Amino acid sequence: PSSKLPDIGTSIFTVMSALANAHKAINLSQGFPDFNCPAPLIELVHAYMLQGFNQYAPMAGVPKLRENISLKTEKLYGYLPDADTEVTVTSGATEALNAAITAVVKTGDEVLLLEPCYDSYAPVIRLCGGVPVYVPLALPDFSVDWDLVKRRISTRTRLILINTPHNPTGAVMTKQDMDMLANLLEGTDTLVISDEVYEHMVFDGQQHYSALQHPQLRKRSIVISSFGKTYHTTGWKIGYAVAPAPLTAELRKMHQFITFSTPTPLQMALADFLEEEAHYLQLPDFYQAKRDFFLEQMKGSRFELIPSAGTYFQLAKYNNISDEYDLDFAKRMTKETGVAAIPVSAFYHDKTDHKYLRFCFAKGEETLQAAAEKLVRL
Amino acid sequence: PSSKLPDIGTSIFTVMSALANAHKAINLSQGFPDFNCPAPLIELVHAYMLQGFNQYAPMAGVPKLRENISLKTEKLYGYLPDADTEVTVTSGATEALNAAITAVVKTGDEVLLLEPCYDSYAPVIRLCGGVPVYVPLALPDFSVDWDLVKRRISTRTRLILINTPHNPTGAVMTKQDMDMLANLLEGTDTLVISDEVYEHMVFDGQQHYSALQHPQLRKRSIVISSFGKTYHTTGWKIGYAVAPAPLTAELRKMHQFITFSTPTPLQMALADFLEEEAHYLQLPDFYQAKRDFFLEQMKGSRFELIPSAGTYFQLAKYNNISDEYDLDFAKRMTKETGVAAIPVSAFYHDKTDHKYLRFCFAKGEETLQAAAEKLVRL
Ligand SMILES: CSCCC(=O)C(=O)O
Ligand SMILES: CSCCC(=O)C(=O)O
Repeated sequence: PSSKLPDIGTSIFTVMSALANAHKAINLSQGFPDFNCPAPLIELVHAYMLQGFNQYAPMAGVPKLRENISLKTEKLYGYLPDADTEVTVTSGATEALNAAITAVVKTGDEVLLLEPCYDSYAPVIRLCGGVPVYVPLALPDFSVDWDLVKRRISTRTRLILINTPHNPTGAVMTKQDMDMLANLLEGTDTLVISDEVYEHMVFDGQQHYSALQHPQLRKRSIVISSFGKTYHTTGWKIGYAVAPAPLTAELRKMHQFITFSTPTPLQMALADFLEEEAHYLQLPDFYQAKRDFFLEQMKGSRFELIPSAGTYFQLAKYNNISDEYDLDFAKRMTKETGVAAIPVSAFYHDKTDHKYLRFCFAKGEETLQAAAEKLVRL
Repeated sequence: PSSKLPDIGTSIFTVMSALANAHKAINLSQGFPDFNCPAPLIELVHAYMLQGFNQYAPMAGVPKLRENISLKTEKLYGYLPDADTEVTVTSGATEALNAAITAVVKTGDEVLLLEPCYDSYAPVIRLCGGVPVYVPLALPDFSVDWDLVKRRISTRTRLILINTPHNPTGAVMTKQDMDMLANLLEGTDTLVISDEVYEHMVFDGQQHYSALQHPQLRKRSIVISSFGKTYHTTGWKIGYAVAPAPLTAELRKMHQFITFSTPTPLQMALADFLEEEAHYLQLPDFYQAKRDFFLEQMKGSRFELIPSAGTYFQLAKYNNISDEYDLDFAKRMTKETGVAAIPVSAFYHDKTDHKYLRFCFAKGEETLQAAAEKLVRL
């Protein structure tokens, strides 16, 4: 019998990380830090394991973790979700996305995706019998063309997925963007999934604007975030979803049968560490310094670099260097130059090539410097 | 818009654990140990976290963990799965079940379920547009009536789910059962999911017979297990699926978009600890002693107790005590007697009541003794 996802091959993250390893290239492809998480977080996990917190967590998440997520949300976005009925802890943002999409998308439903976008959105929609409707972000800055979005909305539009700060482009949505979206959806029952996993990485004095800040939007939104990016623990796979109680109830039905719960000692440790506000409050500066360092080191390269506004990714246009297809260029660069990056075409359903590579700058300065030294020679 | 799973409420495990807590009852309902995991396992997690193993694991699982799963499979079941193409690490057996079912079930496919069965099977099948076809296990011993299974197989039967050792009944399948199943499926393209998470808990000298041991069956089977039961780490949520390469490829497409990967430091620790064969080789004795202790303490009770053949669950028939519906009886027992158990009707799609409660004996002797003291008074 045939595959339910016949066109899905090995993910670009696995492909490029494997190629980087095979050629001992510096790996700026898959998004993850090359430095460790805060030491106190490790000691908290250890202490909770010794105390016996190794059995099932409650299905919706450890209560203290949900409460601290609520309190942080209020502090940052001026809205206090109810921890009991509106916050759900998941196995990473990936599971939150899967549960959210699966909870709401039925056969024949249309779902608007702004491209380029993360590679898990469309397959999950298709597995639910939904129809992805693609709206390209507007070049050169990958901003949202809300008129175009409006034209793609139909009576069958069940859901729109947004992502801010945006992977892979680093673009950041403004309050005006959220107003436009809220106005567009007024009077419809279209829902929103807002993927905000890079919420703590917005640069140059700009602030992240969450869908949770917007009274009209949050009524129809499932907002997804993750601790992996914030605490340098991408490998722990603890994320969460905040949504109005009726939507949360449906999302939890899915979560219950996807993973049921997520690792108890990791949740307990994160619950405590979330009270260390200093960590996430200094994260924009921490990552902006890395971005600036990377851009500084890249001076003199023939890549075109417009400073990333958010995330730990920097786009680089390479059309002054080569007119190869971006995947081919990325592979050749890995092998010949010794630096791996992600070709942005991987984030388009039809693999549109705009001659951009995505570099992850969540790395130590030596790594960034070594990579830039190689890249400026191109 | 309406729910995609309108009839799903709070799971019986959550309901009974919450009721137990509210009434300070001894909780023998939800299946989990009340003792800690092996201390070396905790120290391994700690060491790997300090070494920086906190970023994404490979999508299919840490290589050493997959290799050691393969080696253990060969040692116990005489079959060496290929670690690269046939073994996938998942966020618990629950995710493995979800990924396996989602990978193979399409709209209109029939899936045979032997009832009573675990509560996640049917909802996941229904979310895929599949149709659960229920076959009751035969009373009084909850054995499989293969003639009945045969009568329920149709040309649309895509899949049959089996579970051995069996939750909630403790029944264990024999080689003869597996032969019957293999013969029934000969010449069809019906697949098998074999849920074997209690593989290391089979008592009284009997051996677990895995679908992987059966050359005809393993060609069409996805075999699922978990470390939660084996290492007293139900809260770590690390499971795995073993299946022929083409099936594994489809299962991984789902896993990639469900959770992508599972916590790296936990996988690293389990990979090492899996080499301590002594732990899982002594597990049957460890749990048989608990079962025997519980049965001994229950002597003189009016429950009817046929010794469990496997799992860490003991069924108890209570028709000499009450003719209440099992859920009502279980709730009243929690409140009035101070011991929580699971009503077996929760494992039937139509909530069939055979007057059985399920007790989890994965507890310290003091807990089992205190519970039994209360129960014998009933
Ligand atoms: C889950 S691997 C991909 C990591 C990531 O978010 C990215 O590199 O875009
Ligand atoms: C995931 S909570 C249920 C635990 C369990 O397997 C059981 O009690 O049957």
